[in-house]
Amino acid sequence: MHMLPSMQRLLDELERLPKIGPKSAQDIAYWILNNDRESAERLAHAVVDMKDSIGFCKQCFNYAEDDLCPVCASPSRSSAVLCVVSDPSDIPPIERSGAFTGLYHVLGGVISPLDGVGEEDLHIAELIDRVREGNVAEVVLATDLNPEGNITAARVADLLRPCGCSITRIATGMPKGGEVEFADELTLGAALEYRNAI
Amino acid sequence: MHMLPSMQRLLDELERLPKIGPKSAQDIAYWILNNDRESAERLAHAVVDMKDSIGFCKQCFNYAEDDLCPVCASPSRSSAVLCVVSDPSDIPPIERSGAFTGLYHVLGGVISPLDGVGEEDLHIAELIDRVREGNVAEVVLATDLNPEGNITAARVADLLRPCGCSITRIATGMPKGGEVEFADELTLGAALEYRNAI
Repeated sequence: MHMLPSMQRLLDELERLPKIGPKSAQDIAYWILNNDRESAERLAHAVVDMKDSIGFCKQCFNYAEDDLCPVCASPSRSSAVLCVVSDPSDIPPIERSGAFTGLYHVLGGVISPLDGVGEEDLHIAELIDRVREGNVAEVVLATDLNPEGNITAARVADLLRPCGCSITRIATGMPKGGEVEFADELTLGAALEYRNAI
Repeated sequence: MHMLPSMQRLLDELERLPKIGPKSAQDIAYWILNNDRESAERLAHAVVDMKDSIGFCKQCFNYAEDDLCPVCASPSRSSAVLCVVSDPSDIPPIERSGAFTGLYHVLGGVISPLDGVGEEDLHIAELIDRVREGNVAEVVLATDLNPEGNITAARVADLLRPCGCSITRIATGMPKGGEVEFADELTLGAALEYRNAI
């Protein structure tokens, strides 16, 4: 079938987005056709407007619409504890957990020699400056628990050591609600190794 | 967490789309932030451009950028057989099957008293006109195989009866590759009732 050119162009753009396959792209295109022009305009405007409005926080490199991101700008957050993450997208889930009331520092990636990313490509120097200049008592390393995240955390910890602050790593163990029968052996091994007194 | 307003607006618009939940919307928003401005512009432009470019085919009520949709405009399609579907989105899968070389007629919905849709709200009168005026030998009713689709097909068949053309319904039976053990009883009942000599 000859697909209508304007629809094909939209399908091509939609299929570049994460988790959007051909079927989802088609569903979205038909939804747009079945709805009013205003809906299409609002969607299109929101895409470009977000792209134009958002840059990086000058202090922590989280996404920000102003000089500081909402977390850094909040007077209720403690500047004594910094949580180091690899990407801005790691921050919303930590915020939703409600378990962290300090500030963040976004590295902008992880050390990955295969991808040509070295420690000098990440915001590690800025982290050390923040810890040196500020009144930082603890840095929590919250990079992913995979090899690259672990190596990055280890390297950042080494570089922070001379600053004298406490350096911690988020815990490994069984997820909440996790079933022992279905846990992978590495997770279960960590859960046993780091067992807590109750 | 205070979500950035421009990102929240995009998330709200994205979550209105079919099959896009909060997590997918966030993934898409971060993808847009991580890519160049041109990608965001191309996506936004494709949305509005498709909405502005596409209307309905004057002959069959499929989506069309010109007076006629690509199927109606194709000289290689037979006008002797019409396939009746409820919506334009039913046409691409039939085209992909490669099993139909005639023209379509889109009803624009199904008869559904609960939703206030009667036969006068569908393009049934236009279908009868097409069959009367044209050289139509057969009308294949390809509405969904659910109660509303079946009732609509039955009513359209009744209204077409005086035209004298052949009226058929797409077959019911086991899907290709289907396993008898896991088939639902209604499908299996139909597969037995409509069994074919081999």
